[in-house]
Amino acid sequence: MAFAYHETHRVRFAETDMAGIVHFSNFFRYMENAEDAFFRALGLSIHMSIDGRTISWPRVHAECDYQAPVRFEDELDVHMWVRRKTRKTITYDFAFRVEDRAIAAGSVTAVCVAVDGETKEMTSIAIPELIDTKIDIAPPGHGVPAGPRNQDPTEQ
Amino acid sequence: MAFAYHETHRVRFAETDMAGIVHFSNFFRYMENAEDAFFRALGLSIHMSIDGRTISWPRVHAECDYQAPVRFEDELDVHMWVRRKTRKTITYDFAFRVEDRAIAAGSVTAVCVAVDGETKEMTSIAIPELIDTKIDIAPPGHGVPAGPRNQDPTEQ
Amino acid sequence: MAFAYHETHRVRFAETDMAGIVHFSNFFRYMENAEDAFFRALGLSIHMSIDGRTISWPRVHAECDYQAPVRFEDELDVHMWVRRKTRKTITYDFAFRVEDRAIAAGSVTAVCVAVDGETKEMTSIAIPELIDTKIDIAPPGHGVPAGPRNQDPTEQ
Amino acid sequence: MAFAYHETHRVRFAETDMAGIVHFSNFFRYMENAEDAFFRALGLSIHMSIDGRTISWPRVHAECDYQAPVRFEDELDVHMWVRRKTRKTITYDFAFRVEDRAIAAGSVTAVCVAVDGETKEMTSIAIPELIDTKIDIAPPGHGVPAGPRNQDPTEQ
Repeated sequence: MAFAYHETHRVRFAETDMAGIVHFSNFFRYMENAEDAFFRALGLSIHMSIDGRTISWPRVHAECDYQAPVRFEDELDVHMWVRRKTRKTITYDFAFRVEDRAIAAGSVTAVCVAVDGETKEMTSIAIPELIDTKIDIAPPGHGVPAGPRNQDPTEQ
Repeated sequence: MAFAYHETHRVRFAETDMAGIVHFSNFFRYMENAEDAFFRALGLSIHMSIDGRTISWPRVHAECDYQAPVRFEDELDVHMWVRRKTRKTITYDFAFRVEDRAIAAGSVTAVCVAVDGETKEMTSIAIPELIDTKIDIAPPGHGVPAGPRNQDPTEQ
Repeated sequence: MAFAYHETHRVRFAETDMAGIVHFSNFFRYMENAEDAFFRALGLSIHMSIDGRTISWPRVHAECDYQAPVRFEDELDVHMWVRRKTRKTITYDFAFRVEDRAIAAGSVTAVCVAVDGETKEMTSIAIPELIDTKIDIAPPGHGVPAGPRNQDPTEQ
Repeated sequence: MAFAYHETHRVRFAETDMAGIVHFSNFFRYMENAEDAFFRALGLSIHMSIDGRTISWPRVHAECDYQAPVRFEDELDVHMWVRRKTRKTITYDFAFRVEDRAIAAGSVTAVCVAVDGETKEMTSIAIPELIDTKIDIAPPGHGVPAGPRNQDPTEQ
């Protein structure tokens, strides 16, 4: 069983915006990419067929706190771990860093669904055993400490 | 002074993913688009020059709760209002609907910064008067009620 | 029958990159958006069910010549017309302008396919009559003249 | 001097669309990503400061022929080589493959510009020597042969 994953991501040109930094929406893609790689490392997929059903993981919640901007060509460390599991959902926490700087901290809750092949309707289901037995909850206190923030942009 | 904005968005093909629904990261772009249109309706811009300084609004927090999927060609109502203002930040709340269905509810906190023309470094600043005097906080209780959710995908 | 479509697009913040202009890849999304709106105006959809089959239009060719940069909040005119139709394909040409400035000229060839509900395999098919009878080829010479280019960036 | 680059790209979930395949616009991002990595491998950057000037490479032309769809989790081989160089421009050709299947073939022409720090105006310039001396034109005949196409979707 596994409860954490780490990957690095080199910031791409198209991910920047005219303010010269990574557009904030991309952090949600980075989170999904880590979740995707975590599943693949376990021999699973975030969109796979089990017993003739298509299993997928739409999000029911996503959030991110941004601590410092990240720029083109920066190498971003993406740390991910499982904070919570219920019968139908998994909650992942994320810490983003560039070297020793805290960049962002995020969280996503995804719900397990079966997708109807014809209608594309989604029905939430219990996490299939094949997946459930491979994913564990991280021990309390796990996670990269947020570290000294360079500045608090909201301080007044 | 204004404290709310509404726009509609027709879901584009490229915004869908292989699960047949809008990719969740796009809701954060929809939020920014509404904020952008809100500023423009006030004769402002979310990236503008004031007194020789480039003023921009990076996010310090963004979140979204997803209640029901939205699909290609759906017409999405995006309701936005100002929940909170501090000396340097604005917090916007969002309700997304398709007809009478609740789709998602989001929130974003943006901080006012001056961007250095040379180094692109960002420094948080007090909201310039030109902007501050045009944006008000919504009265308590403002906002589109979340309405009956079609289903709670996380109920167990 | 129709052979042309026009829409405007206000450039969004997330569509810019750190060079301060719209990222070039977005023009291909603008092209698809116009094609999508063209179909919808005809009571059709670029991804629809006909006689129980899912009909879609993957691209077999796409190209764009960029003549001048376009920036945040610019209002882009997107002119589209049908240059060519074969039994299975449609080729659209595009002219992008901001006011009287030529911005870009593009072209896309899409092939009509049936998508298998189970396997997602795509098979090219003759354009269904429902669609074929509504879309005509533009008369020779149709199209927005490219106009005086502000500068030729490749001249030597 | 170098004239070619190769990288692999694992298709991400957010890159797919509701037809179940990679959205065609992403291939243009894959091309730029390879160009970006090529420059970095040479100790350069596609957006860098030389002699106090910001040098960037907006596109003047981009095109792609799509031969077969590519799907979530496919590992895409991106082959890139320099087909042409002028005083101010570089033209790159691309071949995309998954294992032995030809997926797509593309081409991009980028022009070297200096970006004004204040106005963001771009002026095309001769390729700076620092860059020019490191990038060569591929020998005639270089490039991955297109190989047997699985099917020609436009054949009639």
